[in-house]
Amino acid sequence: MNRTKVAIIGASGYTGVELMRILALHPQVELKVVTSRQHVGMPVAELFPSLRGIVKLAFVDHQVEVIADQAELFFTALPHQTALDVVAALCAAGKRVVDLSADYRFSARSLYEQWYQTHTQPELLAEAVYGLPELFRRQIPESRIIGNPGCYPTSVILPLAPILSRGLVAPGTTIVVDAKSGTSGAGRSLSPGSLYCEVNENFKPYKAGTHRHQPEMEEQLERASGIRPEILFVPHLLPVNRGILASIYVPLARPVTVAEVGEILNQAYAGETFIRLLETGALPSLAAVRGSNYCDIGYVLPGNGKQLMLFSAIDNLVKGAAGQAVQNMNLLLGLPEDSGLRTVALVP
Amino acid sequence: MNRTKVAIIGASGYTGVELMRILALHPQVELKVVTSRQHVGMPVAELFPSLRGIVKLAFVDHQVEVIADQAELFFTALPHQTALDVVAALCAAGKRVVDLSADYRFSARSLYEQWYQTHTQPELLAEAVYGLPELFRRQIPESRIIGNPGCYPTSVILPLAPILSRGLVAPGTTIVVDAKSGTSGAGRSLSPGSLYCEVNENFKPYKAGTHRHQPEMEEQLERASGIRPEILFVPHLLPVNRGILASIYVPLARPVTVAEVGEILNQAYAGETFIRLLETGALPSLAAVRGSNYCDIGYVLPGNGKQLMLFSAIDNLVKGAAGQAVQNMNLLLGLPEDSGLRTVALVP
Amino acid sequence: MNRTKVAIIGASGYTGVELMRILALHPQVELKVVTSRQHVGMPVAELFPSLRGIVKLAFVDHQVEVIADQAELFFTALPHQTALDVVAALCAAGKRVVDLSADYRFSARSLYEQWYQTHTQPELLAEAVYGLPELFRRQIPESRIIGNPGCYPTSVILPLAPILSRGLVAPGTTIVVDAKSGTSGAGRSLSPGSLYCEVNENFKPYKAGTHRHQPEMEEQLERASGIRPEILFVPHLLPVNRGILASIYVPLARPVTVAEVGEILNQAYAGETFIRLLETGALPSLAAVRGSNYCDIGYVLPGNGKQLMLFSAIDNLVKGAAGQAVQNMNLLLGLPEDSGLRTVALVP
Amino acid sequence: MNRTKVAIIGASGYTGVELMRILALHPQVELKVVTSRQHVGMPVAELFPSLRGIVKLAFVDHQVEVIADQAELFFTALPHQTALDVVAALCAAGKRVVDLSADYRFSARSLYEQWYQTHTQPELLAEAVYGLPELFRRQIPESRIIGNPGCYPTSVILPLAPILSRGLVAPGTTIVVDAKSGTSGAGRSLSPGSLYCEVNENFKPYKAGTHRHQPEMEEQLERASGIRPEILFVPHLLPVNRGILASIYVPLARPVTVAEVGEILNQAYAGETFIRLLETGALPSLAAVRGSNYCDIGYVLPGNGKQLMLFSAIDNLVKGAAGQAVQNMNLLLGLPEDSGLRTVALVP
Repeated sequence: MNRTKVAIIGASGYTGVELMRILALHPQVELKVVTSRQHVGMPVAELFPSLRGIVKLAFVDHQVEVIADQAELFFTALPHQTALDVVAALCAAGKRVVDLSADYRFSARSLYEQWYQTHTQPELLAEAVYGLPELFRRQIPESRIIGNPGCYPTSVILPLAPILSRGLVAPGTTIVVDAKSGTSGAGRSLSPGSLYCEVNENFKPYKAGTHRHQPEMEEQLERASGIRPEILFVPHLLPVNRGILASIYVPLARPVTVAEVGEILNQAYAGETFIRLLETGALPSLAAVRGSNYCDIGYVLPGNGKQLMLFSAIDNLVKGAAGQAVQNMNLLLGLPEDSGLRTVALVP
Repeated sequence: MNRTKVAIIGASGYTGVELMRILALHPQVELKVVTSRQHVGMPVAELFPSLRGIVKLAFVDHQVEVIADQAELFFTALPHQTALDVVAALCAAGKRVVDLSADYRFSARSLYEQWYQTHTQPELLAEAVYGLPELFRRQIPESRIIGNPGCYPTSVILPLAPILSRGLVAPGTTIVVDAKSGTSGAGRSLSPGSLYCEVNENFKPYKAGTHRHQPEMEEQLERASGIRPEILFVPHLLPVNRGILASIYVPLARPVTVAEVGEILNQAYAGETFIRLLETGALPSLAAVRGSNYCDIGYVLPGNGKQLMLFSAIDNLVKGAAGQAVQNMNLLLGLPEDSGLRTVALVP
Repeated sequence: MNRTKVAIIGASGYTGVELMRILALHPQVELKVVTSRQHVGMPVAELFPSLRGIVKLAFVDHQVEVIADQAELFFTALPHQTALDVVAALCAAGKRVVDLSADYRFSARSLYEQWYQTHTQPELLAEAVYGLPELFRRQIPESRIIGNPGCYPTSVILPLAPILSRGLVAPGTTIVVDAKSGTSGAGRSLSPGSLYCEVNENFKPYKAGTHRHQPEMEEQLERASGIRPEILFVPHLLPVNRGILASIYVPLARPVTVAEVGEILNQAYAGETFIRLLETGALPSLAAVRGSNYCDIGYVLPGNGKQLMLFSAIDNLVKGAAGQAVQNMNLLLGLPEDSGLRTVALVP
Repeated sequence: MNRTKVAIIGASGYTGVELMRILALHPQVELKVVTSRQHVGMPVAELFPSLRGIVKLAFVDHQVEVIADQAELFFTALPHQTALDVVAALCAAGKRVVDLSADYRFSARSLYEQWYQTHTQPELLAEAVYGLPELFRRQIPESRIIGNPGCYPTSVILPLAPILSRGLVAPGTTIVVDAKSGTSGAGRSLSPGSLYCEVNENFKPYKAGTHRHQPEMEEQLERASGIRPEILFVPHLLPVNRGILASIYVPLARPVTVAEVGEILNQAYAGETFIRLLETGALPSLAAVRGSNYCDIGYVLPGNGKQLMLFSAIDNLVKGAAGQAVQNMNLLLGLPEDSGLRTVALVP
């Protein structure tokens, strides 16, 4: 069989090594090129000993003109802003791109520019598709650029979209999203806050109400449901390597039963491979999704009936980044959506 | 100097070892008796090697008639329900008791009985004082029984009481309390959910909206402020040994400025040794209070001005249990309130 | 294709859930039966939410007469001693068994009985084969009973056997094995020492010089090399879920060069899928093998040339238990040895 | 009472914050100056929120001419080599110094220069005293410069010195020291290997046989015992914040009984406040010493009687650095040796 050649631009971070882990075992693609400005010439297995004997490439520089010919589909795992022009150059070379930065996630250019910086490729932004297959599956295969969703937004949009669509959220109210992420979400760059001794045995909120994933959630939830929600998003840093658990507090527009909530979620996601709705009253955990592409969703209606609680768990590096990127690649290439992604969480 | 003799009934759990850690260095008291049904005759230092060379006692059985004479003040660190009659027997023997179970925390017997079980000592319950010194300091010295607050309630009542008192909470709304606790909060008893491999690299909510600390918070907040709040309390289990971080989302009754919030909290707690108000915008962390008796409080007003966010951090075994119990003991004995409690968090 | 039906007797522990994780994705076998005395009737996914949607079985009781017909090959993951007669009954029913207890690992019955208890099935013990494929591959396919190696012995025998075979170990000397294991090695049973708060932020040796894996190592190293080594084995408990790192100090019989050591190891293992020899001077780590079936081996010759240091890393639940058991199953069934085992370590 | 004024040069690392934690509560000294080149002007409590309300200083630059007058005794917690001239300048200004770098630890200048770099202050080096009070207590009070011992050497010299002194080590043999350290030992500087996701759930050896603490151990053991031992030292990195556990394998010169070993250690250390000899067969753990200045020592004689095993546990930041430095300061100032150091390990 002819495997499709793929490349990763910016492969020396945690998203990069996770893409390599998944792609190395993917039956229908072949990883041909991995780039890292910082580690040009270094064998991948030297930086990431877990890939010893598995990925035999060395890092190269990411000059698009040099590497564009070597693959058909590109993952860009670069910092925000850096991806802008690299993606454009790859498109100009006729390639398809799954971009894991925020640069092609927003529909409204103004919103991107309000929270990030000037967007240098507005036409391409308009063309890009938000790569959340469970909600926007049809548009993905026809696109050249997939804006791979943020990790937190994935964990929030999936449980919330059907609830919002069905009018359960009381208008004018604020949905509180209290989310907790493992430390790999902060990336592999050097910062005092990412040191072992700062994170271990610690826990704290950060960027309370000011995180850039909040507008992303609000915009895509509106696209999915037709209703613009008002979200108060507070992330916290967990002393674990992987995983996001989002606790979502929804002021209800009207009384509902827990059975009705279950039915709404079930109708939305019953056929989805990567969404697991928990039985009534069960609550998700990070361990149950670690290393897998699942999003586990639980829901609880407390006594007074005024609020619905939604809980979701994903692995931030899989469904929140590399796994979802491969899911998007599968759709782009016409492969089975779960190809290379049928893994079970590593427990314990 | 004559040291006051004290005893711990039920000293083989995490609260017990923490009480011993603090009391061993307390300059004005002497630990004379420690009991443990399960470990009668075992030297304390065999069960807890950290106390080797420091606590030279062995565990004895907790027959009140035998041990009542050996100390003047007793800490009871027994499971809920077990404490009911032990505390009563100690009182009958003329002793003063700081009870770390839930058995003497509630003002309303009916509320206790709704969430726990029949209360066998209603007269003593009526007499007991809720031992949160920052709010109820005056009543403590005159009491025979101190109901030492629950760990979660301590972390929630302290930041919330002044806000509620000043009418900032919109009537009829729900205050969401999304709290996260280290695993020592689950105690030292054997349960699958407390195994290392189940907790490590994991995180999950539990008892969402049904935890027994919720009515305790609501009752004591009403006592402190005159207003009964409606709280939706969702605890989560953190992979750390110690610490509670509470994220509290308060729907506001009217627009406030962040300066006003700071002033309210400052007026309430400016003179308090064990409460540290963070500067505007700063957020607390578990590490900053680990091993200490502090409650750190931060506050944030997000853009839309509809909600106030309060964040608090305590060490669940210190300010959330043993440290607060010693603070209560100091008040009961007329000692400086911070005696034996001037410790600095262990960082890193 | 017709998948071979397999069963797991004793599937509610960590070895059990790991076997299920691997077998669920194995392309040539089908998991038909899982047993657990304690959880009869409970759906597997209720006990192990990671397997939700993946393993749809419920636990049954392990009466051999009832389940023997339902599978062709059995994994027994029972406590030592319990496996003795269950394995015998399965053999009597004409089934093949990979036993993950210690009951069929020893060649010398007397050695087993010295360290464990009376062996009730001495004929079967004589027939059983020690399932370390890299050293005893030829004997495995013809056997009915595979004694799946202990986790520590796997990590020690693999690096040491070639060194011993080539006469590098000074006769009459003691090889020090200072090994460190993640907590899943202690199993999922309830014991105070396995509680999160006891293991986390802690580290300690245990059973120094008296662990039952020491005679297993010595016996199998003699079988593999013809020379009986004297080993001083000291295990330590690590605050991680998974992994064994063994540091092995070998008094040398004669001066060697590091190149010679590399060549010896290379000759022994160059063709092995699951052994990765590190480049000279590189040292293994737990992270590089987590979740995979690899054994990574490093070697260092310190300045004075008197001692050779060997370092090995495995995942105790994979190469140290379930993965190796599946490797043995593949050999028994004539499947590719790495079938179902081509996984990459989960990093970070 | 007049408190002695002290200063910390280089206070923004983990040793610095630990010194501040201890000194803040020390009854006879007053911390007057803390320096940090990187954080000049920043309040200490901003960098280390654990010290909020406790240390009210801000960091200043470490120009000796400016700060020499402000304190009588100085702790230098600077990187190796940087300390060389700062210590000399402080001495020239008539101050006494406890230096926590390696710059004043070695007796033989040539050994220092072999493992570090040129020593610019050889006369001061000759004058400096190795600050291990349990072995060199008498020399400390008369000295101007204390070379505070390395963390690993402290954990190894203490258990080994009496054994070596009494001729128990077989001449010409190698003592294997397999040591494991928490991550704070690597300091607070930014390095990929200190990132949370690299250390957590990981474990690995490093600098096997080439670590610079090996010659320090050998030299000081010779000074203490008159016999130069040959040590093979292999450190490993533990996923905990604090603690060193050293497993020491001693080839015996002659048969001994465990009672004899116990007696030797007891004779050496019976009166020592900070050394706790465990009962026969008991093994130390990191948890039992966390946050305290204790060194716990255990000893085991395995069956064949050829090797003695010693195990020691310390908190690398306390007895391995800041606590020992304060112990040395107490001796220098004629204070009770345990002043400010009577703390109990934080468990759990």
